[in-house]
Amino acid sequence: MAPVKVFGPAMSTNVARVLVCLEEVGAEYEVVNIDFQAKEHKGPEHLARNPFGQIPAFQDGDVVLFESRAISKYILRKYKSAETDLLREGNLREAAMVDVWTEVEAHQYNPALSPVVYECLINPTMRGVPTNQKVVDESLEKLRKVVHVYEARLSKSKYLAGDFLSFADLNHFPYTFYFMATPHASLFDSYPHVKAWWERLMARPSMKKLGASMAPKP
Amino acid sequence: MAPVKVFGPAMSTNVARVLVCLEEVGAEYEVVNIDFQAKEHKGPEHLARNPFGQIPAFQDGDVVLFESRAISKYILRKYKSAETDLLREGNLREAAMVDVWTEVEAHQYNPALSPVVYECLINPTMRGVPTNQKVVDESLEKLRKVVHVYEARLSKSKYLAGDFLSFADLNHFPYTFYFMATPHASLFDSYPHVKAWWERLMARPSMKKLGASMAPKP
Repeated sequence: MAPVKVFGPAMSTNVARVLVCLEEVGAEYEVVNIDFQAKEHKGPEHLARNPFGQIPAFQDGDVVLFESRAISKYILRKYKSAETDLLREGNLREAAMVDVWTEVEAHQYNPALSPVVYECLINPTMRGVPTNQKVVDESLEKLRKVVHVYEARLSKSKYLAGDFLSFADLNHFPYTFYFMATPHASLFDSYPHVKAWWERLMARPSMKKLGASMAPKP
Repeated sequence: MAPVKVFGPAMSTNVARVLVCLEEVGAEYEVVNIDFQAKEHKGPEHLARNPFGQIPAFQDGDVVLFESRAISKYILRKYKSAETDLLREGNLREAAMVDVWTEVEAHQYNPALSPVVYECLINPTMRGVPTNQKVVDESLEKLRKVVHVYEARLSKSKYLAGDFLSFADLNHFPYTFYFMATPHASLFDSYPHVKAWWERLMARPSMKKLGASMAPKP
């Protein structure tokens, strides 16, 4: 079987979201770089894959997909096994908890945490744009409220959806990984259950491997 | 079987997202109002349902959920029948297309369209805050680009995920319904396939019924 293709630089957060799922299920894959400087993401070949001209895009034979969370779910369904059932769609209650915490990542956690990553890491090092401290401060305040809810949740179960690893956890990998390289990583020290959960995730071979290639340059 | 409970005012967009799913599958439900003026959404009973103190929350016996998109999926799975299979999780390709266009709603469509609803409808009529025209103009520009992609998609298939109604379509109901009550509804006139799709949706008994109770006061 030909390996599936993921289009977009592996260092990108939304590409890494897909790659961590591929690593977890042990699928063969190939990363196809998209050259942003050559505006390849706005070219006709890439627009046929992703009509918004964004990354990632994904190809498995004649199945072509975009939107990182949708691609991830396709992968987790296709390669589901007795060992890896990370969506739990066969169990009404468990699937609901996976969905709840997947939506929390998209609508609560990421909107609070990702601006800190952009302001402290991506803008100054990759775009030559200085950090907007007001945005950072407001985001950190929001993030503390969100992580407070996570702390309560993770004091009751080992992972977000319950005592089993799921897509809801994996989904937090790319942005949190980069957040931990900002000067604000210590925010998590006040939340011992969240900190232990994150360390448990980062000990996984999938995240160790991807993290090594994503490591932001100082 | 006791009816399931949806907590939050039915006029709220994220509550309506859940209600349209309940109507489509024909489930019995009860809407339990949450009194925002009395700060009931930040009280201990509601926080036990939704730790972020937001609406909606949902209860089905001892299953308690939050996040409107997660609640919706629970409902569509639980009440799935031969007539209504709106997630298509049994079909790898179809489920992927439902997911892609569900994510597009969350990450492309809604961020462009919802500010127009807030600025033109919710802020001036419910909050006494004047419309910020700059936000409206920028959002409409983004929205045109998004709807352009929808037009191409809907010229190839009757619904977003394919030639079948799915959660991806239903998901567009609440915000688009209110957008159509703003002075900018005519934006859709330039996109005949999108306009026809919307009219097809609005002709459904579920949306007619909910729309009647959501109708914004002039």
